[in-house]
Amino acid sequence: MQLLVPPPPQIDRGPLSSLPPTIAWVGGADGHVELIDQTLLPAELRVTQCRSADDVWSAIRRLAVRGAPAIGVAGAYGLCLGTRALVGAARDEWTCGVDAAAAHLIACRPTAVNLAWAVRRAQRAGAARLSDGPAAAWIAMLAESHTIWAQDAETCRRIGETGESLVPDGGGVLTHCNAGALATVAYGTALAPLYLAHARGKRFTVYADETRPLLQGARLTAYELSAAGIAVRVLCDGAAASLLRSGAVQIVLVGADRIAANGDFANKIGTYGLALAAHRHHIPFYVAAPCSTIDERTPSGESIEIEQRSAGEVRGAYGAQWMSESVACWNPAFDVTPAELVTGFVTEAGVVQPVSAGGMMEILRRGGCKGTAAV
Amino acid sequence: MQLLVPPPPQIDRGPLSSLPPTIAWVGGADGHVELIDQTLLPAELRVTQCRSADDVWSAIRRLAVRGAPAIGVAGAYGLCLGTRALVGAARDEWTCGVDAAAAHLIACRPTAVNLAWAVRRAQRAGAARLSDGPAAAWIAMLAESHTIWAQDAETCRRIGETGESLVPDGGGVLTHCNAGALATVAYGTALAPLYLAHARGKRFTVYADETRPLLQGARLTAYELSAAGIAVRVLCDGAAASLLRSGAVQIVLVGADRIAANGDFANKIGTYGLALAAHRHHIPFYVAAPCSTIDERTPSGESIEIEQRSAGEVRGAYGAQWMSESVACWNPAFDVTPAELVTGFVTEAGVVQPVSAGGMMEILRRGGCKGTAAV
Repeated sequence: MQLLVPPPPQIDRGPLSSLPPTIAWVGGADGHVELIDQTLLPAELRVTQCRSADDVWSAIRRLAVRGAPAIGVAGAYGLCLGTRALVGAARDEWTCGVDAAAAHLIACRPTAVNLAWAVRRAQRAGAARLSDGPAAAWIAMLAESHTIWAQDAETCRRIGETGESLVPDGGGVLTHCNAGALATVAYGTALAPLYLAHARGKRFTVYADETRPLLQGARLTAYELSAAGIAVRVLCDGAAASLLRSGAVQIVLVGADRIAANGDFANKIGTYGLALAAHRHHIPFYVAAPCSTIDERTPSGESIEIEQRSAGEVRGAYGAQWMSESVACWNPAFDVTPAELVTGFVTEAGVVQPVSAGGMMEILRRGGCKGTAAV
Repeated sequence: MQLLVPPPPQIDRGPLSSLPPTIAWVGGADGHVELIDQTLLPAELRVTQCRSADDVWSAIRRLAVRGAPAIGVAGAYGLCLGTRALVGAARDEWTCGVDAAAAHLIACRPTAVNLAWAVRRAQRAGAARLSDGPAAAWIAMLAESHTIWAQDAETCRRIGETGESLVPDGGGVLTHCNAGALATVAYGTALAPLYLAHARGKRFTVYADETRPLLQGARLTAYELSAAGIAVRVLCDGAAASLLRSGAVQIVLVGADRIAANGDFANKIGTYGLALAAHRHHIPFYVAAPCSTIDERTPSGESIEIEQRSAGEVRGAYGAQWMSESVACWNPAFDVTPAELVTGFVTEAGVVQPVSAGGMMEILRRGGCKGTAAV
């Protein structure tokens, strides 16, 4: 049976076009997923092919693909791969098979809300076309997955457009963790303004916190910025306050995992201390994120539950271990920064500045929550 | 020839008596130095014997012994080992030989002011007895080295006495880097109040910043506190601000590398951000250090020069490397915390609180600068 599917949309990845895409569907109905294996970065740039839902499942599980938007796209494409063999099945069998495949993928990282959101969105698009038969439903799922992919890239590009004017030509920018192209389809969130500014001729130095315990800043942010030709210097997290005092940095730009209705926000552990130091030295502190990260149902940071992760992450890194198993650790994955320390939120629908609950709701209405989902 | 030398003084190492001494002279005139090889901690507790000045030199160089007070003691004993063979020499030959040995040891870590201070102090004690012959001079050098050793332990114990009442029974204490027994002959500086409080029955949890890049908190502070039976939890440096907000900590206690006359002080990188977070959450922030760390000739923190260390320290840890050699890093060894963020200085001569230039000079006079030298 011949399946005619829409081709993946073309997107301009700007200064990152020298790198393979973080994740992409290659080919038509008989295509597959290709993604950068981020567990090997920065030592090796290897593109892994996923030809089954299990391949995608294990890529997500072992963090070969990470970052909420990128994981969502992987899940949707994984659902397409996992249900392709069912196009000749009866409708009941199709429905059951798709639901089982979706549930399996979602369970891979149950706390990643974006994964469930994208997988269910693709599944719903298929169900809506099931009256035309499983083949049409499958094509609709793949087309929807392409749309999720393209919308993520477009949302990030628009975040970049919104924030580009904030980037100091000839100056310094401090960021934390990796809210970059490797966490999304393209551009990233916090790094999107930097890519656009660089493409338009601005020159600046990005200071990247290494971001213990998992070192996403040292391993991923430094890698992708260097690949795009942007000057980057890595520092240990404890050195950030001194850097902000030194005068080398004119703006702090970070991502967000969840933004409460009042503007408090959760992000990778270490962000709060950074905000305190920026406040002390009167350095603008901006948060770049899609509108969908704003969670109306979370009134303030106090109601954001913080995940505690394993002590093993603190006891070592990258294969080395310098503490015995008997040493107890305290390892929260995220922290919460109060709205009063945020100069502004940079979204695809514009900037919220000054930060207020009213401003957050206004941008949410304007943005219409397209693109990535809240995590 | 028979050399009758005074035995090493006896000291009470309190809760750390289950561990070997950080450094000690073993035996009489034909004795040797034994020290814990800190490069192997925490994986292995090995006591290394140094039987020559070269043994000591290489132990200092490869950081088997570290921490300003401990390095000073090692240098003085190293001078004794390196000049023992000269006791039968002529006086001129003795003087030249001792001076050459002293210069060689001091050059081992030229930025460690304490090393030069202790080596020259032992050398001067020998020179003062040279009129009685080289053997008497050598005995005087060894006796002076023992005195340096014992004074360091006593200074640290008195810092502990001064600060013990600050330790919250049933509460939490946050510290940074290793200002502990492993950096001194016994007790440490910032950790001394904790050892005394524990010995007197107080129970509390010490939160230890891992202290990137060299991980002294994770490797050494966690190790020695655990060995003494004190509960310890290690956290990544970026998590400290969240910890201080959580309410788990009632006091921050750190050491100092240099204290300016106005109370600004330099300490391991990461201390400044910690002080900002403690200030935000109204948690007392104390600095424990010998009076000799107060440098009258340094008017304020602005005149403290900060050593930049190699990018290699940031690119990896403990044998692992996660960044390529091409990635630039920013790696200051220390930062400066302004006096206004310090609740008080805990010294062997008492507490300076509130902090003022007048208070610093008063404690300096009271302390008389015995024990360790400024670094």
